[in-house]
Amino acid sequence: MYTAIGYAAQSPSSPLAPMTFQRRSPRADDVVIEILYCGVCHSDIHQARNEWGIAVYPLMPGHEIVGRVSAVGDQVSRHQVGDLVGVGCMVDSCRHCAACRQDLEQYCLEGPTMTYASPDRIDASNTLGGYASSIVVSEHFVLRLPQGLDLPSAAPILCAGITTYSPLKHHGVGPGHQVGVLGMGGLGHMGIKFAKALGAEVTLFTRSLAKAEEARRQGADHVILSTDAEQMRAAAERFDFLLDTIPVPHDLNPYLETLKFDGVHILVGLVEPIQTPVHAAHLVTKRRVLAGSMIGGIAETQEVLDFCAEHGIGCDVEMLDIADINQAYARMIAGDVKYRFVIDMATLRG
Amino acid sequence: MYTAIGYAAQSPSSPLAPMTFQRRSPRADDVVIEILYCGVCHSDIHQARNEWGIAVYPLMPGHEIVGRVSAVGDQVSRHQVGDLVGVGCMVDSCRHCAACRQDLEQYCLEGPTMTYASPDRIDASNTLGGYASSIVVSEHFVLRLPQGLDLPSAAPILCAGITTYSPLKHHGVGPGHQVGVLGMGGLGHMGIKFAKALGAEVTLFTRSLAKAEEARRQGADHVILSTDAEQMRAAAERFDFLLDTIPVPHDLNPYLETLKFDGVHILVGLVEPIQTPVHAAHLVTKRRVLAGSMIGGIAETQEVLDFCAEHGIGCDVEMLDIADINQAYARMIAGDVKYRFVIDMATLRG
Repeated sequence: MYTAIGYAAQSPSSPLAPMTFQRRSPRADDVVIEILYCGVCHSDIHQARNEWGIAVYPLMPGHEIVGRVSAVGDQVSRHQVGDLVGVGCMVDSCRHCAACRQDLEQYCLEGPTMTYASPDRIDASNTLGGYASSIVVSEHFVLRLPQGLDLPSAAPILCAGITTYSPLKHHGVGPGHQVGVLGMGGLGHMGIKFAKALGAEVTLFTRSLAKAEEARRQGADHVILSTDAEQMRAAAERFDFLLDTIPVPHDLNPYLETLKFDGVHILVGLVEPIQTPVHAAHLVTKRRVLAGSMIGGIAETQEVLDFCAEHGIGCDVEMLDIADINQAYARMIAGDVKYRFVIDMATLRG
Repeated sequence: MYTAIGYAAQSPSSPLAPMTFQRRSPRADDVVIEILYCGVCHSDIHQARNEWGIAVYPLMPGHEIVGRVSAVGDQVSRHQVGDLVGVGCMVDSCRHCAACRQDLEQYCLEGPTMTYASPDRIDASNTLGGYASSIVVSEHFVLRLPQGLDLPSAAPILCAGITTYSPLKHHGVGPGHQVGVLGMGGLGHMGIKFAKALGAEVTLFTRSLAKAEEARRQGADHVILSTDAEQMRAAAERFDFLLDTIPVPHDLNPYLETLKFDGVHILVGLVEPIQTPVHAAHLVTKRRVLAGSMIGGIAETQEVLDFCAEHGIGCDVEMLDIADINQAYARMIAGDVKYRFVIDMATLRG
């Protein structure tokens, strides 16, 4: 067993606070990782506060983990002590179902083991995430960090990155396509970068004119003010794909009308009922599609890391002292971060 | 000009009644068709009563037309006098946009010319449909009826048939797939036949146990009573595709849960807001897709007619004397038809 330290919530109403705990000794296929950086995802807040009703306490968030291998189990072949590696939203799955066999562990029919607040498949212990000094993970769920990636900027690729990259790839986004990105937070700004790198012409939809200049800096070719009915009308039937990263209920109908026939509206941020209701005619009369997507499989997460290294893509991050995590949560809820907090884990040890 | 007779509504509140009118003399690319049979679609009722707000009066419904060519224009090459032919929901389109170039005239960027209540692209006259003795249509929008089709049973293939066939083909339904069909009216019973002929295992979802035996006769392998929560739960994550023919608002959420990951819920009957709202998590967490589809292009309509001839598929019809059309509408609204009324146009002449 390894004694570790980290930040956890002890109840839905308690702030995150330091906690000392034990990580398991490595099983034969396990990799022990000294965590260097961990991104802060909105899910972390939802889960710490049990806003999805599935939290298990103590709840230690963190699933955008970058670190260095400090030990390996006897049968580990993919990673060596000293390697720079990453861990994302999942640390295990059944590995034999139809989804797992297709490298889609996130849709595992038995349910994947999430990086935190999930029962471990072997000893049933509650998984504890990456706001910690170390973590122990089966090698199959540990990603190789290619050379050339800036480590703090790479951490959010493990969730915000794969979440936006995976559906763009799945739906075949490429040169000649018009892609609209809805919202420019942690997910949206990565979506702009990926759609652009894949060869598409990219438009940001935003409610804030102030984001226009910034969107162009991220690679957007155009900006549409979604609150301007005239601009929305002018965009009718223009887009092949919409990547919708907005995490709160919003009216999809005006956006659906900006899709061409056979256009695809991809939801990656919303996990609530779709209010205002979607008008079926927007789908039926133009053979449009409303699709969902959740993170990505392990093989594709490796692919997006390699893609980022090749294309010089990283997440725009603000470094965070872990002692400030509760203030960071408040700023995230206020939308005051460009675009992802990343905890420098040296601040935990120091 | 040809003097024709037919049944039309003169206002949203007036019943259909006989009307004498003129069909145009054939243009160079026109085919003149003596109508033998015409199916009665629910859209006919919506339009006759202006329930979609787009009716133009006099409104003569009918877009499931089977007849015999009685004259052709100078440049017609596809059809000859005496040929048995069909006309579906469209009689023209722009023929040069991205949709038309892909044989998807139903999604014509300039809007297709519908068989009734649409302005003709050349003389702007209001199109009048198939509840009539004859019709004049450009040859490109006239389908060849292959040998072996029973004529009355073939008429509804031009709308109910292509509407259900097209999305099954588009989404690649085939052997090894589990297909659920929602509702068993004119569209649903054709959906069962097509999904089965394409090699899928087919389940009817219905609120009525009385339909179970009948569904098996149509080719369904299984029946699920959608009002039975236990049966719905037992079907969780079972289906690859759902073909949803229900034409009135209904809660999609319990059905979405019966889809596997990557499953596709296809709407072909609903053109209203989706109430109860769809829960985004049903799409996001399993990469499911909610798709729409509307009739089919002309080339694919020919394909479905040929497919029906090859597989011995026809619509189950009840023959109708056109003088009884208003009573037939009342029975359709009550769900009292198996499964499509088809007007025997001899009753118009007789």
